[in-house]
Amino acid sequence: MSAPGVAVVANDGAAAPFRRAAILGVGLIGGSVAAALRRAGLAGEIVGSSPGQDARTAHAIGLVDRCEPDAARAVRDADLVVLAAPIAAIGRLFPVIAPHLAADALVTDCASTKGSTVEAARAALGDAFERFVPGHPIAGGERHGPHAARADLFERAVTVLCPQPATGAGPLERVRALWTAFGARVTELSVQAHDELFAEVSHWPHAVAFALCGAIAAGERAETAQRFAGAGLRDTTRIAASSADLWAGILLDNREPVLACAQAFERELAAVLDALRRADRDALRARFEAASAWRRGVG
Amino acid sequence: MSAPGVAVVANDGAAAPFRRAAILGVGLIGGSVAAALRRAGLAGEIVGSSPGQDARTAHAIGLVDRCEPDAARAVRDADLVVLAAPIAAIGRLFPVIAPHLAADALVTDCASTKGSTVEAARAALGDAFERFVPGHPIAGGERHGPHAARADLFERAVTVLCPQPATGAGPLERVRALWTAFGARVTELSVQAHDELFAEVSHWPHAVAFALCGAIAAGERAETAQRFAGAGLRDTTRIAASSADLWAGILLDNREPVLACAQAFERELAAVLDALRRADRDALRARFEAASAWRRGVG
Repeated sequence: MSAPGVAVVANDGAAAPFRRAAILGVGLIGGSVAAALRRAGLAGEIVGSSPGQDARTAHAIGLVDRCEPDAARAVRDADLVVLAAPIAAIGRLFPVIAPHLAADALVTDCASTKGSTVEAARAALGDAFERFVPGHPIAGGERHGPHAARADLFERAVTVLCPQPATGAGPLERVRALWTAFGARVTELSVQAHDELFAEVSHWPHAVAFALCGAIAAGERAETAQRFAGAGLRDTTRIAASSADLWAGILLDNREPVLACAQAFERELAAVLDALRRADRDALRARFEAASAWRRGVG
Repeated sequence: MSAPGVAVVANDGAAAPFRRAAILGVGLIGGSVAAALRRAGLAGEIVGSSPGQDARTAHAIGLVDRCEPDAARAVRDADLVVLAAPIAAIGRLFPVIAPHLAADALVTDCASTKGSTVEAARAALGDAFERFVPGHPIAGGERHGPHAARADLFERAVTVLCPQPATGAGPLERVRALWTAFGARVTELSVQAHDELFAEVSHWPHAVAFALCGAIAAGERAETAQRFAGAGLRDTTRIAASSADLWAGILLDNREPVLACAQAFERELAAVLDALRRADRDALRARFEAASAWRRGVG
Protein backbone atom coordinates (compact mmCIF):
# COMPACT_ATOMS: atom_id res chain seq x y z
CA MET A 1 0.00 0.00 0.00
CA SER A 2 2.98 2.34 0.26
CA ALA A 3 3.22 5.03 -2.38
CA PRO A 4 6.49 5.77 -4.17
CA GLY A 5 8.86 7.67 -1.96
CA VAL A 6 7.19 6.84 1.35
CA ALA A 7 8.82 4.22 3.50
CA VAL A 8 6.51 2.53 5.99
CA VAL A 9 9.44 1.43 8.14
CA ALA A 10 12.29 3.38 9.69
CA ASN A 11 14.54 4.84 7.06
CA ASP A 12 17.87 3.86 8.54
CA GLY A 13 19.66 6.92 7.23
CA ALA A 14 18.66 6.56 3.57
CA ALA A 15 17.35 9.66 1.78
CA ALA A 16 14.24 10.95 3.55
CA PRO A 17 11.07 10.50 1.53
CA PHE A 18 10.00 14.09 2.27
CA ARG A 19 12.63 16.73 1.70
CA ARG A 20 10.91 19.17 4.07
CA ALA A 21 7.96 18.78 6.44
CA ALA A 22 6.20 21.88 7.75
CA ILE A 23 4.24 21.36 10.97
CA LEU A 24 1.79 24.19 11.62
CA GLY A 25 0.96 24.08 15.32
CA VAL A 26 3.55 22.29 17.45
CA GLY A 27 1.67 21.29 20.59
CA LEU A 28 1.11 17.74 21.78
CA ILE A 29 -0.12 16.48 18.39
CA GLY A 30 2.06 18.53 16.03
CA GLY A 31 5.09 17.95 18.25
CA SER A 32 4.41 14.22 18.25
CA VAL A 33 4.09 14.23 14.43
CA ALA A 34 7.51 15.90 14.31
CA ALA A 35 8.97 13.37 16.73
CA ALA A 36 7.45 10.43 14.85
CA LEU A 37 8.69 11.80 11.48
CA ARG A 38 12.17 12.09 12.88
CA ARG A 39 12.15 8.67 14.51
CA ALA A 40 10.98 7.09 11.24
CA GLY A 41 13.58 9.06 9.28
CA LEU A 42 10.87 10.35 6.99
CA ALA A 43 11.81 14.02 6.63
CA GLY A 44 15.01 15.74 5.53
CA GLU A 45 14.11 18.86 7.47
CA ILE A 46 11.29 19.55 9.91
CA VAL A 47 10.04 23.11 10.20
CA GLY A 48 7.76 24.05 13.10
CA SER A 49 5.45 27.06 13.02
CA SER A 50 3.12 28.62 15.56
CA PRO A 51 2.08 32.18 16.35
CA GLY A 52 2.92 31.71 20.04
CA GLN A 53 5.68 30.13 22.07
CA ASP A 54 5.10 26.47 21.08
CA ALA A 55 7.27 26.43 17.93
CA ARG A 56 10.17 28.13 19.74
CA THR A 57 9.87 25.60 22.56
CA ALA A 58 9.67 22.74 20.04
CA HIS A 59 12.86 24.02 18.43
CA ALA A 60 14.59 24.51 21.77
CA ILE A 61 13.88 20.92 22.87
CA GLY A 62 14.88 19.51 19.47
CA LEU A 63 11.49 18.40 18.14
CA VAL A 64 11.92 20.50 14.95
CA ASP A 65 15.00 21.57 13.01
CA ARG A 66 13.83 25.09 12.42
CA CYS A 67 11.26 27.47 13.88
CA GLU A 68 9.40 29.80 11.54
CA PRO A 69 6.60 31.81 13.17
CA ASP A 70 5.22 32.87 9.79
CA ALA A 71 3.08 30.04 8.37
CA ALA A 72 3.43 31.26 4.75
CA ARG A 73 7.22 31.11 5.04
CA ALA A 74 7.12 27.81 6.88
CA VAL A 75 5.40 25.95 4.03
CA ARG A 76 7.76 27.23 1.28
CA ASP A 77 9.37 24.32 -0.54
CA ALA A 78 7.82 21.87 1.93
CA ASP A 79 6.54 18.69 0.25
CA LEU A 80 4.64 17.73 3.40
CA VAL A 81 2.45 20.22 5.29
CA VAL A 82 0.74 19.04 8.48
CA LEU A 83 -1.81 21.38 10.05
CA ALA A 84 -1.92 20.56 13.76
CA ALA A 85 -3.07 23.92 15.12
CA PRO A 86 -6.07 24.23 17.46
CA ILE A 87 -9.37 23.87 15.65
CA ALA A 88 -10.20 27.56 15.87
CA ALA A 89 -6.97 28.45 14.02
CA ILE A 90 -6.83 25.75 11.35
CA GLY A 91 -9.53 27.22 9.10
CA ARG A 92 -7.68 30.54 8.96
CA LEU A 93 -4.40 28.86 7.99
CA PHE A 94 -5.54 27.51 4.61
CA PRO A 95 -5.86 30.90 2.84
CA VAL A 96 -2.58 32.01 4.44
CA ILE A 97 -0.58 29.06 3.13
CA ALA A 98 -2.39 28.42 -0.18
CA PRO A 99 -0.38 30.89 -2.33
CA HIS A 100 2.91 29.57 -0.94
CA LEU A 101 2.46 25.81 -1.24
CA ALA A 102 4.98 23.94 -3.39
CA ALA A 103 3.52 22.33 -6.51
CA ASP A 104 4.13 18.87 -5.05
CA ALA A 105 3.10 19.66 -1.48
CA LEU A 106 1.04 16.99 0.23
CA VAL A 107 -1.26 18.66 2.79
CA THR A 108 -2.95 16.97 5.73
CA ASP A 109 -4.39 17.99 9.10
CA CYS A 110 -5.05 16.57 12.57
CA ALA A 111 -8.22 18.42 13.50
CA SER A 112 -10.74 16.73 15.81
CA THR A 113 -13.64 17.90 13.67
CA LYS A 114 -13.61 17.51 9.94
CA GLY A 115 -16.63 19.38 8.54
CA SER A 116 -15.32 22.92 9.03
CA THR A 117 -11.74 21.94 8.19
CA VAL A 118 -12.66 20.36 4.88
CA GLU A 119 -14.84 23.34 3.90
CA ALA A 120 -12.09 25.83 4.74
CA ALA A 121 -9.58 23.79 2.73
CA ARG A 122 -11.94 23.46 -0.23
CA ALA A 123 -12.56 27.20 -0.25
CA ALA A 124 -8.88 28.17 -0.04
CA LEU A 125 -6.70 25.55 -1.69
CA GLY A 126 -7.85 25.61 -5.34
CA ASP A 127 -6.01 22.95 -7.35
CA ALA A 128 -4.04 21.93 -4.26
CA PHE A 129 -7.27 20.59 -2.70
CA GLU A 130 -6.56 17.42 -4.70
CA ARG A 131 -3.45 16.98 -2.55
CA PHE A 132 -5.24 17.67 0.79
CA VAL A 133 -6.08 14.57 2.85
CA PRO A 134 -8.25 15.34 5.91
CA GLY A 135 -7.03 13.33 8.91
CA HIS A 136 -7.67 12.85 12.61
CA PRO A 137 -5.31 10.84 14.79
CA ILE A 138 -7.24 9.61 17.84
CA ALA A 139 -4.57 10.39 20.36
CA GLY A 140 -3.89 12.99 22.95
CA GLY A 141 -4.81 13.30 26.54
CA GLU A 142 -5.09 15.88 29.24
CA ARG A 143 -1.46 16.94 28.83
CA HIS A 144 -0.71 19.43 26.11
CA GLY A 145 2.05 21.52 24.60
CA PRO A 146 5.33 20.46 22.92
CA HIS A 147 6.79 19.14 26.18
CA ALA A 148 4.11 16.42 26.17
CA ALA A 149 5.00 15.31 22.60
CA ARG A 150 6.12 11.69 22.09
CA ALA A 151 7.31 9.83 19.02
CA ASP A 152 5.16 6.85 20.03
CA LEU A 153 1.95 8.81 20.63
CA PHE A 154 0.26 7.31 17.57
CA GLU A 155 1.32 3.71 18.04
CA ARG A 156 -1.73 1.44 18.01
CA ALA A 157 -3.95 4.55 17.91
CA VAL A 158 -6.59 4.86 15.23
CA THR A 159 -6.15 7.59 12.61
CA VAL A 160 -9.28 8.45 10.67
CA LEU A 161 -8.94 9.81 7.14
CA CYS A 162 -11.88 11.52 5.42
CA PRO A 163 -10.96 11.58 1.71
CA GLN A 164 -13.16 13.70 -0.55
CA PRO A 165 -14.28 12.87 -4.10
CA ALA A 166 -11.61 15.33 -5.28
CA THR A 167 -8.83 13.79 -3.18
CA GLY A 168 -6.15 12.21 -5.37
CA ALA A 169 -5.44 8.50 -4.96
CA GLY A 170 -1.68 9.20 -4.70
CA PRO A 171 -1.95 11.75 -1.88
CA LEU A 172 -4.41 9.49 -0.01
CA GLU A 173 -2.02 6.54 -0.18
CA ARG A 174 0.98 8.62 0.88
CA VAL A 175 -0.84 9.99 3.93
CA ARG A 176 -2.13 6.52 4.77
CA ALA A 177 1.45 5.19 4.55
CA LEU A 178 2.71 8.03 6.74
CA TRP A 179 0.32 7.23 9.60
CA THR A 180 0.98 3.54 9.19
CA ALA A 181 4.70 4.30 9.57
CA PHE A 182 3.86 6.08 12.84
CA GLY A 183 2.27 2.84 14.07
CA ALA A 184 -1.34 4.00 13.71
CA ARG A 185 -4.23 1.89 12.42
CA VAL A 186 -5.74 3.89 9.57
CA THR A 187 -9.44 3.86 8.77
CA GLU A 188 -11.70 5.97 6.55
CA LEU A 189 -14.99 7.66 7.38
CA SER A 190 -17.15 10.27 5.69
CA VAL A 191 -16.94 13.75 7.19
CA GLN A 192 -20.46 13.51 8.56
CA ALA A 193 -19.96 10.04 10.05
CA HIS A 194 -16.70 11.22 11.62
CA ASP A 195 -18.15 14.33 13.18
CA GLU A 196 -21.22 12.58 14.57
CA LEU A 197 -19.18 9.68 15.91
CA PHE A 198 -16.57 11.86 17.59
CA ALA A 199 -19.19 14.15 19.05
CA GLU A 200 -20.46 11.02 20.78
CA VAL A 201 -17.24 9.26 21.83
CA SER A 202 -15.09 12.29 22.57
CA HIS A 203 -16.51 15.80 22.37
CA TRP A 204 -19.68 15.33 24.40
CA PRO A 205 -17.96 13.21 27.10
CA HIS A 206 -15.51 16.10 27.53
CA ALA A 207 -18.41 18.51 28.05
CA VAL A 208 -19.91 16.13 30.64
CA ALA A 209 -16.62 15.76 32.51
CA PHE A 210 -16.14 19.54 32.53
CA ALA A 211 -19.71 20.02 33.82
CA LEU A 212 -19.22 17.38 36.53
CA CYS A 213 -16.12 19.17 37.80
CA GLY A 214 -17.63 22.61 37.28
CA ALA A 215 -20.58 21.73 39.50
CA ILE A 216 -18.30 20.44 42.27
CA ALA A 217 -15.98 23.44 41.89
CA ALA A 218 -18.91 25.82 42.33
CA GLY A 219 -20.23 24.02 45.41
CA GLU A 220 -19.59 24.32 49.14
CA ARG A 221 -17.41 21.22 49.36
CA ALA A 222 -15.02 21.99 46.49
CA GLU A 223 -11.85 21.56 48.55
CA THR A 224 -13.03 18.61 50.65
CA ALA A 225 -14.12 16.87 47.45
CA GLN A 226 -10.61 17.24 46.04
CA ARG A 227 -9.22 15.42 49.07
CA PHE A 228 -11.82 12.64 49.04
CA ALA A 229 -11.88 12.01 45.28
CA GLY A 230 -11.42 8.27 44.80
CA ALA A 231 -10.32 6.30 41.76
CA GLY A 232 -13.82 6.48 40.27
CA LEU A 233 -14.11 10.26 40.27
CA ARG A 234 -10.48 10.64 39.21
CA ASP A 235 -11.01 8.50 36.13
CA THR A 236 -14.40 9.97 35.33
CA THR A 237 -13.05 13.51 35.34
CA ARG A 238 -9.49 13.00 34.11
CA ILE A 239 -10.26 14.61 30.72
CA ALA A 240 -11.60 17.71 32.47
CA ALA A 241 -7.98 18.60 33.23
CA SER A 242 -7.59 19.14 29.46
CA SER A 243 -7.14 22.58 27.91
CA ALA A 244 -10.31 24.63 28.39
CA ASP A 245 -9.50 26.75 25.37
CA LEU A 246 -8.90 23.82 23.05
CA TRP A 247 -12.10 22.06 24.05
CA ALA A 248 -14.25 25.17 23.90
CA GLY A 249 -13.01 25.45 20.30
CA ILE A 250 -13.72 21.82 19.41
CA LEU A 251 -17.22 21.84 20.90
CA LEU A 252 -18.12 25.06 19.12
CA ASP A 253 -16.73 23.79 15.85
CA ASN A 254 -18.75 20.56 16.03
CA ARG A 255 -21.76 22.20 17.63
CA GLU A 256 -24.70 20.53 15.90
CA PRO A 257 -23.58 16.91 16.41
CA VAL A 258 -22.59 17.79 20.00
CA LEU A 259 -26.00 19.30 20.71
CA ALA A 260 -27.63 16.14 19.34
CA CYS A 261 -25.58 14.13 21.85
CA ALA A 262 -26.55 16.55 24.59
CA GLN A 263 -30.20 15.90 23.82
CA ALA A 264 -29.79 12.11 23.96
CA PHE A 265 -27.85 12.43 27.23
CA GLU A 266 -30.42 14.72 28.80
CA ARG A 267 -33.16 12.30 27.86
CA GLU A 268 -31.30 9.43 29.51
CA LEU A 269 -30.44 11.50 32.57
CA ALA A 270 -34.06 12.60 32.97
CA ALA A 271 -35.16 8.95 32.91
CA VAL A 272 -32.56 8.05 35.55
CA LEU A 273 -33.64 10.95 37.77
CA ASP A 274 -37.28 10.12 37.30
CA ALA A 275 -36.67 6.53 38.44
CA LEU A 276 -34.64 7.84 41.37
CA ARG A 277 -37.36 10.30 42.46
CA ARG A 278 -40.03 7.63 42.18
CA ALA A 279 -37.71 5.19 44.02
CA ASP A 280 -38.33 2.77 41.15
CA ARG A 281 -35.52 0.37 41.79
CA ASP A 282 -36.33 -1.93 38.86
CA ALA A 283 -36.38 0.94 36.34
CA LEU A 284 -33.10 2.33 37.70
CA ARG A 285 -31.42 -1.05 37.62
CA ALA A 286 -32.64 -1.75 34.06
CA ARG A 287 -31.18 1.55 32.80
CA PHE A 288 -27.87 0.98 34.58
CA GLU A 289 -27.76 -2.59 33.31
CA ALA A 290 -28.09 -1.45 29.67
CA ALA A 291 -25.38 1.17 30.24
CA SER A 292 -23.12 -1.31 31.99
CA ALA A 293 -23.55 -3.91 29.24
CA TRP A 294 -22.55 -1.34 26.64
CA ARG A 295 -19.48 -0.33 28.64
CA ARG A 296 -18.36 -3.90 29.17
CA GLY A 297 -18.51 -4.29 25.38
CA VAL A 298 -15.94 -1.53 24.81
CA GLY A 299 -13.01 -3.38 23.26
CA MET B 1 -3.81 4.68 69.49
CA SER B 2 -4.18 0.88 69.45
CA ALA B 3 -6.68 -0.58 71.91
CA PRO B 4 -5.84 -3.61 74.06
CA GLY B 5 -5.94 -6.81 72.06
CA VAL B 6 -5.70 -5.22 68.62
CA ALA B 7 -2.36 -5.35 66.89
CA VAL B 8 -1.81 -2.65 64.30
CA VAL B 9 0.95 -4.66 62.65
CA ALA B 10 1.02 -8.22 61.33
CA ASN B 11 0.61 -10.72 64.09
CA ASP B 12 3.42 -13.12 63.22
CA GLY B 13 1.62 -16.19 64.52
CA ALA B 14 0.83 -14.90 68.02
CA ALA B 15 -2.72 -15.34 69.37
CA ALA B 16 -5.24 -13.59 67.11
CA PRO B 17 -6.80 -10.52 68.69
CA PHE B 18 -10.30 -11.58 67.51
CA ARG B 19 -11.27 -15.16 68.24
CA ARG B 20 -13.88 -15.19 65.48
CA ALA B 21 -14.76 -12.65 62.77
CA ALA B 22 -18.10 -12.92 61.00
CA ILE B 23 -18.24 -11.22 57.59
CA LEU B 24 -21.80 -10.70 56.39
CA GLY B 25 -21.62 -10.23 52.63
CA VAL B 26 -18.47 -11.62 51.04
CA GLY B 27 -18.17 -9.76 47.74
CA LEU B 28 -15.28 -7.50 46.77
CA ILE B 29 -15.33 -5.54 50.04
CA GLY B 30 -16.25 -8.27 52.52
CA GLY B 31 -13.90 -10.69 50.79
CA SER B 32 -11.09 -8.15 50.97
CA VAL B 33 -11.79 -7.59 54.68
CA ALA B 34 -11.47 -11.36 55.16
CA ALA B 35 -8.22 -11.46 53.16
CA ALA B 36 -6.80 -8.47 55.05
CA LEU B 37 -7.78 -9.98 58.42
CA ARG B 38 -6.05 -13.20 57.50
CA ARG B 39 -2.93 -11.50 56.14
CA ALA B 40 -2.63 -9.42 59.32
CA GLY B 41 -3.22 -12.50 61.48
CA LEU B 42 -6.03 -10.70 63.29
CA ALA B 43 -8.72 -13.41 63.49
CA GLY B 44 -8.68 -16.95 64.88
CA GLU B 45 -11.52 -17.99 62.60
CA ILE B 46 -13.21 -16.14 59.75
CA VAL B 47 -16.84 -16.99 59.02
CA GLY B 48 -18.40 -15.78 55.78
CA SER B 49 -22.13 -15.41 55.32
CA SER B 50 -24.31 -14.46 52.36
CA PRO B 51 -27.73 -15.55 51.17
CA GLY B 52 -26.41 -16.29 47.67
CA GLN B 53 -23.36 -17.94 46.17
CA ASP B 54 -20.71 -15.44 47.34
CA ALA B 55 -19.99 -17.01 50.75
CA ARG B 56 -19.70 -20.48 49.23
CA THR B 57 -17.31 -19.12 46.61
CA ALA B 58 -15.34 -17.25 49.29
CA HIS B 59 -15.00 -20.50 51.22
CA ALA B 60 -14.06 -22.48 48.12
CA ILE B 61 -11.24 -20.06 47.23
CA GLY B 62 -10.01 -19.92 50.82
CA LEU B 63 -11.00 -16.37 51.75
CA VAL B 64 -12.99 -17.57 54.79
CA ASP B 65 -12.57 -20.60 57.04
CA ARG B 66 -16.25 -21.41 57.18
CA CYS B 67 -19.36 -20.60 55.22
CA GLU B 68 -22.62 -20.10 57.11
CA PRO B 69 -25.54 -18.93 54.94
CA ASP B 70 -27.63 -18.02 57.99
CA ALA B 71 -26.52 -14.63 59.33
CA ALA B 72 -27.87 -15.28 62.83
CA ARG B 73 -25.78 -18.43 63.12
CA ALA B 74 -22.77 -16.75 61.53
CA VAL B 75 -22.47 -14.09 64.25
CA ARG B 76 -22.72 -16.55 67.19
CA ASP B 77 -19.70 -16.22 69.43
CA ALA B 78 -18.07 -13.80 66.96
CA ASP B 79 -16.27 -10.93 68.70
CA LEU B 80 -16.00 -9.05 65.38
CA VAL B 81 -18.98 -8.66 63.04
CA VAL B 82 -18.42 -6.83 59.75
CA LEU B 83 -21.48 -6.04 57.66
CA ALA B 84 -20.34 -5.79 54.04
CA ALA B 85 -23.57 -6.70 52.28
CA PRO B 86 -25.07 -4.52 49.54
CA ILE B 87 -26.70 -1.40 50.90
CA ALA B 88 -30.22 -2.67 50.27
CA ALA B 89 -29.56 -5.73 52.47
CA ILE B 90 -27.59 -4.20 55.34
CA GLY B 91 -30.53 -2.53 57.05
CA ARG B 92 -32.41 -5.82 57.20
CA LEU B 93 -29.44 -7.64 58.75
CA PHE B 94 -29.36 -5.69 62.04
CA PRO B 95 -32.64 -7.07 63.46
CA VAL B 96 -31.66 -10.56 62.27
CA ILE B 97 -28.31 -10.60 64.07
CA ALA B 98 -29.16 -8.46 67.11
CA PRO B 99 -30.52 -11.30 69.33
CA HIS B 100 -27.52 -13.49 68.53
CA LEU B 101 -24.61 -11.11 69.06
CA ALA B 102 -22.02 -12.09 71.66
CA ALA B 103 -21.84 -9.77 74.66
CA ASP B 104 -18.41 -8.56 73.59
CA ALA B 105 -19.10 -8.38 69.84
CA LEU B 106 -17.67 -5.36 68.07
CA VAL B 107 -19.91 -4.50 65.09
CA THR B 108 -18.94 -2.40 62.09
CA ASP B 109 -20.07 -2.00 58.50
CA CYS B 110 -18.73 -0.95 55.09
CA ALA B 111 -21.81 0.67 53.58
CA SER B 112 -21.34 3.52 51.08
CA THR B 113 -24.13 5.52 52.71
CA LYS B 114 -24.31 5.99 56.42
CA GLY B 115 -27.64 7.66 57.22
CA SER B 116 -29.89 4.66 56.65
CA THR B 117 -27.35 2.20 58.07
CA VAL B 118 -26.94 4.09 61.33
CA GLU B 119 -30.70 4.42 61.75
CA ALA B 120 -31.26 0.72 61.10
CA ALA B 121 -28.54 -0.17 63.60
CA ARG B 122 -29.90 2.22 66.22
CA ALA B 123 -33.39 0.77 65.88
CA ALA B 124 -32.27 -2.85 66.09
CA LEU B 125 -29.16 -3.18 68.24
CA GLY B 126 -30.32 -1.96 71.65
CA ASP B 127 -27.40 -1.96 74.12
CA ALA B 128 -25.09 -3.33 71.42
CA PHE B 129 -25.39 -0.02 69.54
CA GLU B 130 -22.63 1.23 71.86
CA ARG B 131 -20.36 -1.33 70.18
CA PHE B 132 -21.40 -0.46 66.61
CA VAL B 133 -18.93 1.72 64.68
CA PRO B 134 -20.28 2.92 61.30
CA GLY B 135 -17.52 2.72 58.67
CA HIS B 136 -16.95 3.22 54.96
CA PRO B 137 -13.72 2.11 53.29
CA ILE B 138 -13.24 4.16 50.11
CA ALA B 139 -12.17 1.28 47.93
CA GLY B 140 -13.68 -0.86 45.28
CA GLY B 141 -13.94 -0.51 41.58
CA GLU B 142 -15.90 -1.86 38.67
CA ARG B 143 -14.96 -5.45 39.52
CA HIS B 144 -17.08 -7.19 42.11
CA GLY B 145 -17.60 -10.54 43.83
CA PRO B 146 -15.26 -12.59 46.03
CA HIS B 147 -12.93 -13.40 43.12
CA ALA B 148 -12.03 -9.69 42.95
CA ALA B 149 -11.11 -9.58 46.68
CA ARG B 150 -7.55 -8.59 47.60
CA ALA B 151 -5.76 -8.38 50.95
CA ASP B 152 -4.23 -5.05 49.87
CA LEU B 153 -7.46 -3.40 48.67
CA PHE B 154 -7.48 -0.95 51.58
CA GLU B 155 -3.82 0.02 51.51
CA ARG B 156 -3.47 3.79 51.30
CA ALA B 157 -7.26 4.04 50.86
CA VAL B 158 -9.26 6.32 53.13
CA THR B 159 -11.69 4.72 55.57
CA VAL B 160 -14.30 7.07 56.98
CA LEU B 161 -15.76 6.33 60.41
CA CYS B 162 -18.97 8.06 61.57
CA PRO B 163 -19.06 7.52 65.35
CA GLN B 164 -22.31 8.45 67.11
CA PRO B 165 -22.68 10.10 70.54
CA ALA B 166 -23.56 6.63 71.87
CA THR B 167 -20.52 4.95 70.31
CA GLY B 168 -18.12 3.68 72.97
CA ALA B 169 -14.55 5.00 72.95
CA GLY B 170 -13.16 1.45 73.18
CA PRO B 171 -15.06 0.11 70.15
CA LEU B 172 -14.16 3.22 68.14
CA GLU B 173 -10.46 2.78 68.85
CA ARG B 174 -10.53 -0.93 68.08
CA VAL B 175 -12.20 -0.37 64.70
CA ARG B 176 -9.81 2.48 63.96
CA ALA B 177 -6.86 0.18 64.76
CA LEU B 178 -8.33 -2.55 62.56
CA TRP B 179 -8.49 -0.33 59.46
CA THR B 180 -5.07 1.07 60.26
CA ALA B 181 -3.74 -2.50 60.34
CA PHE B 182 -5.24 -2.99 56.85
CA GLY B 183 -3.16 -0.02 55.65
CA ALA B 184 -6.03 2.46 55.42
CA ARG B 185 -5.92 6.11 56.45
CA VAL B 186 -8.77 6.56 58.92
CA THR B 187 -10.77 9.76 59.21
CA GLU B 188 -14.02 10.75 60.93
CA LEU B 189 -17.03 12.56 59.52
CA SER B 190 -20.58 13.13 60.70
CA VAL B 191 -23.21 11.00 58.98
CA GLN B 192 -24.63 14.00 57.16
CA ALA B 193 -21.23 15.30 56.02
CA HIS B 194 -20.32 11.80 54.84
CA ASP B 195 -23.49 11.24 52.86
CA GLU B 196 -23.40 14.67 51.20
CA LEU B 197 -19.72 14.39 50.37
CA PHE B 198 -19.97 10.89 48.90
CA ALA B 199 -23.07 11.78 46.93
CA GLU B 200 -20.84 14.36 45.29
CA VAL B 201 -17.54 12.50 44.84
CA SER B 202 -18.89 9.02 44.18
CA HIS B 203 -22.63 8.38 43.91
CA TRP B 204 -23.58 11.16 41.50
CA PRO B 205 -20.53 10.62 39.24
CA HIS B 206 -21.64 6.99 38.93
CA ALA B 207 -25.11 8.13 37.83
CA VAL B 208 -23.52 10.45 35.24
CA ALA B 209 -21.25 7.71 33.88
CA PHE B 210 -24.19 5.31 33.65
CA ALA B 211 -26.25 7.98 31.85
CA LEU B 212 -23.41 8.76 29.43
CA CYS B 213 -23.15 5.08 28.47
CA GLY B 214 -26.91 4.58 28.51
CA ALA B 215 -27.37 7.38 25.97
CA ILE B 216 -24.72 5.92 23.66
CA ALA B 217 -26.11 2.40 24.11
CA ALA B 218 -29.59 3.59 23.09
CA GLY B 219 -28.30 5.43 20.02
CA GLU B 220 -27.72 4.43 16.39
CA ARG B 221 -23.96 4.21 16.72
CA ALA B 222 -23.76 1.99 19.82
CA GLU B 223 -21.48 -0.61 18.25
CA THR B 224 -19.30 1.78 16.25
CA ALA B 225 -18.83 3.86 19.39
CA GLN B 226 -17.53 0.80 21.23
CA ARG B 227 -14.85 0.35 18.56
CA PHE B 228 -13.85 4.02 18.46
CA ALA B 229 -13.87 4.69 22.21
CA GLY B 230 -10.52 6.28 23.03
CA ALA B 231 -8.72 6.63 26.35
CA GLY B 232 -10.86 9.62 27.32
CA LEU B 233 -14.22 7.88 26.99
CA ARG B 234 -12.84 4.68 28.51
CA ASP B 235 -11.72 6.50 31.64
CA THR B 236 -14.82 8.66 31.85
CA THR B 237 -17.12 5.65 31.76
CA ARG B 238 -15.05 2.99 33.52
CA ILE B 239 -17.26 3.07 36.62
CA ALA B 240 -20.34 2.43 34.46
CA ALA B 241 -19.12 -1.17 34.14
CA SER B 242 -19.89 -1.48 37.88
CA SER B 243 -22.77 -3.55 39.21
CA ALA B 244 -26.07 -1.99 38.14
CA ASP B 245 -27.87 -3.56 41.06
CA LEU B 246 -25.39 -2.33 43.66
CA TRP B 247 -25.42 1.23 42.37
CA ALA B 248 -29.19 1.42 41.99
CA GLY B 249 -29.27 0.50 45.69
CA ILE B 250 -26.69 3.08 46.75
CA LEU B 251 -28.30 5.92 44.80
CA LEU B 252 -31.74 5.11 46.19
CA ASP B 253 -30.38 4.86 49.70
CA ASN B 254 -28.69 8.26 49.49
CA ARG B 255 -31.40 9.81 47.38
CA GLU B 256 -31.73 13.31 48.82
CA PRO B 257 -28.03 14.25 48.73
CA VAL B 258 -27.76 12.67 45.27
CA LEU B 259 -30.70 14.70 43.97
CA ALA B 260 -29.06 17.85 45.34
CA CYS B 261 -25.94 16.99 43.31
CA ALA B 262 -28.11 16.32 40.28
CA GLN B 263 -29.54 19.80 40.60
CA ALA B 264 -26.11 21.44 40.79
CA PHE B 265 -24.93 19.38 37.82
CA GLU B 266 -27.98 20.22 35.71
CA ARG B 267 -27.46 23.90 36.48
CA GLU B 268 -23.84 23.71 35.31
CA LEU B 269 -24.74 21.65 32.25
CA ALA B 270 -27.47 24.10 31.28
CA ALA B 271 -24.97 26.96 31.47
CA VAL B 272 -22.49 25.03 29.28
CA LEU B 273 -25.20 24.24 26.72
CA ASP B 274 -26.43 27.81 26.76
CA ALA B 275 -22.92 29.08 25.99
CA LEU B 276 -22.57 26.46 23.27
CA ARG B 277 -25.91 27.36 21.64
CA ARG B 278 -25.06 31.06 21.75
CA ALA B 279 -21.55 30.25 20.42
CA ASP B 280 -20.22 32.27 23.37
CA ARG B 281 -16.64 31.10 23.32
CA ASP B 282 -15.53 33.22 26.27
CA ALA B 283 -18.33 31.94 28.52
CA LEU B 284 -17.63 28.33 27.54
CA ARG B 285 -13.92 28.71 28.10
CA ALA B 286 -14.45 30.37 31.49
CA ARG B 287 -16.67 27.50 32.70
CA PHE B 288 -14.25 24.86 31.43
CA GLU B 289 -11.34 26.75 32.98
CA ALA B 290 -12.97 26.70 36.44
CA ALA B 291 -13.71 22.99 36.04
CA SER B 292 -10.21 22.25 34.82
CA ALA B 293 -8.61 24.20 37.67
CA TRP B 294 -10.62 22.19 40.20
CA ARG B 295 -9.64 18.90 38.55
CA ARG B 296 -5.95 19.79 38.46
CA GLY B 297 -6.21 20.41 42.21
CA VAL B 298 -7.31 16.83 42.92
CA GLY B 299 -4.47 15.43 45.00
